[in-house]
Amino acid sequence: MPYFDAASAAPLHPVGRQALLAALEEGWADPARLYREGRRARLLLDAAREAAAEAVECRPDELVFTPSGTRAVHAGIEGALAGRRRVGRHLIVSAVEHSSVLHSAEAHEALGGSVTEVGVDRTGAVAPDAFAGSLRPDTALACLQSANHEVGTVQPVAEVAEACRAAGVPLLVDAAQSLGWGPVAGDWSLLTASAHKWGGPSGVGLLVVRKGVRFAPRGPLDERESGRAAGFENIPAVVAAAASLRAVRAEAAGEAARLRELTERIRTRVPALVPDVEVTGDPERRLPGIVTFSCLYVDGETVLHELDGAGFSVSSGSSCTSSTLTPSHVLRAMGVLSEGNVRVSLPPGTPAEDVERFLAVLPGVVAGVREKLGAPVTAGGLRGADRGAGESGAPTGDALVVDALGRRCPVPVIELARVIDDVPVGGTVRVLADDEAARLDIPAWCEMRGQEYVGEESADRGSAYVVRRTS
Amino acid sequence: MPYFDAASAAPLHPVGRQALLAALEEGWADPARLYREGRRARLLLDAAREAAAEAVECRPDELVFTPSGTRAVHAGIEGALAGRRRVGRHLIVSAVEHSSVLHSAEAHEALGGSVTEVGVDRTGAVAPDAFAGSLRPDTALACLQSANHEVGTVQPVAEVAEACRAAGVPLLVDAAQSLGWGPVAGDWSLLTASAHKWGGPSGVGLLVVRKGVRFAPRGPLDERESGRAAGFENIPAVVAAAASLRAVRAEAAGEAARLRELTERIRTRVPALVPDVEVTGDPERRLPGIVTFSCLYVDGETVLHELDGAGFSVSSGSSCTSSTLTPSHVLRAMGVLSEGNVRVSLPPGTPAEDVERFLAVLPGVVAGVREKLGAPVTAGGLRGADRGAGESGAPTGDALVVDALGRRCPVPVIELARVIDDVPVGGTVRVLADDEAARLDIPAWCEMRGQEYVGEESADRGSAYVVRRTS
Repeated sequence: MPYFDAASAAPLHPVGRQALLAALEEGWADPARLYREGRRARLLLDAAREAAAEAVECRPDELVFTPSGTRAVHAGIEGALAGRRRVGRHLIVSAVEHSSVLHSAEAHEALGGSVTEVGVDRTGAVAPDAFAGSLRPDTALACLQSANHEVGTVQPVAEVAEACRAAGVPLLVDAAQSLGWGPVAGDWSLLTASAHKWGGPSGVGLLVVRKGVRFAPRGPLDERESGRAAGFENIPAVVAAAASLRAVRAEAAGEAARLRELTERIRTRVPALVPDVEVTGDPERRLPGIVTFSCLYVDGETVLHELDGAGFSVSSGSSCTSSTLTPSHVLRAMGVLSEGNVRVSLPPGTPAEDVERFLAVLPGVVAGVREKLGAPVTAGGLRGADRGAGESGAPTGDALVVDALGRRCPVPVIELARVIDDVPVGGTVRVLADDEAARLDIPAWCEMRGQEYVGEESADRGSAYVVRRTS
Repeated sequence: MPYFDAASAAPLHPVGRQALLAALEEGWADPARLYREGRRARLLLDAAREAAAEAVECRPDELVFTPSGTRAVHAGIEGALAGRRRVGRHLIVSAVEHSSVLHSAEAHEALGGSVTEVGVDRTGAVAPDAFAGSLRPDTALACLQSANHEVGTVQPVAEVAEACRAAGVPLLVDAAQSLGWGPVAGDWSLLTASAHKWGGPSGVGLLVVRKGVRFAPRGPLDERESGRAAGFENIPAVVAAAASLRAVRAEAAGEAARLRELTERIRTRVPALVPDVEVTGDPERRLPGIVTFSCLYVDGETVLHELDGAGFSVSSGSSCTSSTLTPSHVLRAMGVLSEGNVRVSLPPGTPAEDVERFLAVLPGVVAGVREKLGAPVTAGGLRGADRGAGESGAPTGDALVVDALGRRCPVPVIELARVIDDVPVGGTVRVLADDEAARLDIPAWCEMRGQEYVGEESADRGSAYVVRRTS
């Protein structure tokens, strides 16, 4: 049963499991105590810190263990902002950061700070110049992920770090997706990561603060982990995390090459096997194991459900698979299609056969969902016979109007595709919709179909999205 | 090798270990995902929450898992204070709470809140009337531990909860030391606990917020655990925590009776075996496994070291065994002797032979340390022959002065004991000392020796502690 969601969480690496079992026996006591059980626990903690620091390429005393990657991000951002409060309260983040970073930015804004969100191109990458251009004299901190968690695009961290260093602004790098593959290059100031992403156990994050970076921990005083991560140390998990990191690093070069080839198969063959698909993310500067694509005219939830039934566990940034009713902020920032979005993230060790089987199953799954939704069957085509009379477009004045109010993704786009052939070339169609995803997916559809997206108009309810037929 | 520091941390219960191993296979995935690994993880998390809620006697939707007991306390206090910010910013804590509570109170004060610390009697218990008397119209929250972590005294939670309820003030109970023994009685509003204290793994705390209690989580938004505990859920550890709790509860009644008898042996026999000892904590209303005593004329660090060498792992609230150079705030609030402090906290399953062996070893250990320090050998006595000439008291005016400046605990008290026989009955002696512990230990010595503690006078350096010989 192939599990293809390693970017969410990976099962514990066998080496980590062994380390955890050993450390449960030896590392349960309070490392602050002077008796033998405490001394043993302290030795294990120190050794784990040294191993993790070696993998990060930092000093052991620059690294603390936190209870999760999220806590590392929260504590890192709060502490760095507080440490440079005198300089100012401006924070820079990329628009495609992990939610823990963006929610930290929101919390900072709620407390009166200011935030600049640096946009990305259609591949999901920030432009170093644009990032550098957002640096201000009152910038306290800048944050950039090492690589994106949804589309796998690797960010230009070294260039951005150089620009930040020149401006005297510390750069925090969220390395959650990449640390298992290698250290983060560049002259960054803070770094965060999460063990369960690299095959370590749940319950362990890393926060690295380079010597010389001003840092003022927030919250009630706690002497553990240099005052940067409150609470009793979880030594068995920390030991397992460090052991797993060392183990995945030992296998990283070979495994990266192998997974890169497998994800390349998906990148190239899915658009050939499935019509009306957009593969997202940078084709070259990307993580080895992540590939993401979106399929027109399907809803992500049904696709995920069908794939799960076929034995494949994947993730999605479609709005209809999340509780928020909005598409993934990453896809939105990239301006790419969100409907029918599928993220495949291969864990190390994934056999090629599993990927081949996925490629064999996927076309039928997508076709089945499209069939059920009455979606167009050929690229750009339209099945006039299937069109429900009550749902068809009706001319009002010189423009056709499609009423998709109250209908969820992907219905507004399907309805648009159903009527486009009724629009004279050069004429326009208005799609009325109140599903958030339409704002992203109608322009994305136009881009994919070669039609012109004119713009959005406010309407009594929802919005009207105006499309001009160009061919 | 007997480990007698269960109040700090206990090794993982065998049932918890089994549960952890099973949940590492089944519970590593993201419980928010809809695929089978996610659904399995969700089922485990839900089952663990139900089991924990049953043990706490609350509803499952009132309980969230946090990364530690400390985080539960920090988040619980912050959230409850923020939820009642309109009522006021007054916080009540007992003087003998865990440091995580007291540090939260300090953080609240630093942000402009006000804090009342309710004192305790010599047994370490708060008086319900005094606690109730500190309630004010602007009191946002009150905090009282279920039982003290250093001396084992059980607090009158039910009475205090009733008073708080009558005043409309929520009571947060830190149940870290008692939850393994049973649910906390009384009409409390919030409760916190820590799994590694009851034989669960590190990395798991509990935060319970009763329905109807106003609560506003602090920090960046995070949807996990009802928004009250940020970060990826540590399901294997949570499952192990719940399984351990159920297991220790099944054994609790029998084990409590057995440990109570063993700690009673220590309570009664240590003062008979070792001269000049003060046993602290309530003799009746106390936890089954904790007993604490302080030995005059010894330093805690050496006693712990010698006991460790003899195979016994115990803890101490003496200043010389901590990094802060101040005695435990619990002993200070109780007004009892801190020097030579030893806390014995027996894990469930401790065999009676281990306790007997401890009782056989302890007198020699204490005598050996006293010998090295040149301390008086008989109760109240004084070995004049050992007295160093330069350290003896010198009369100044009508009073003897002992200069113990720069000398660490227990030297000031030893010096006082050395000279007391040179003081005429009715006369006074001044002890000059700059070790913080003297402020607690000189009055405590007077109490134990039946001498009169006159008071503290400021001096050029440190303080002068004035003692009148009464017999």
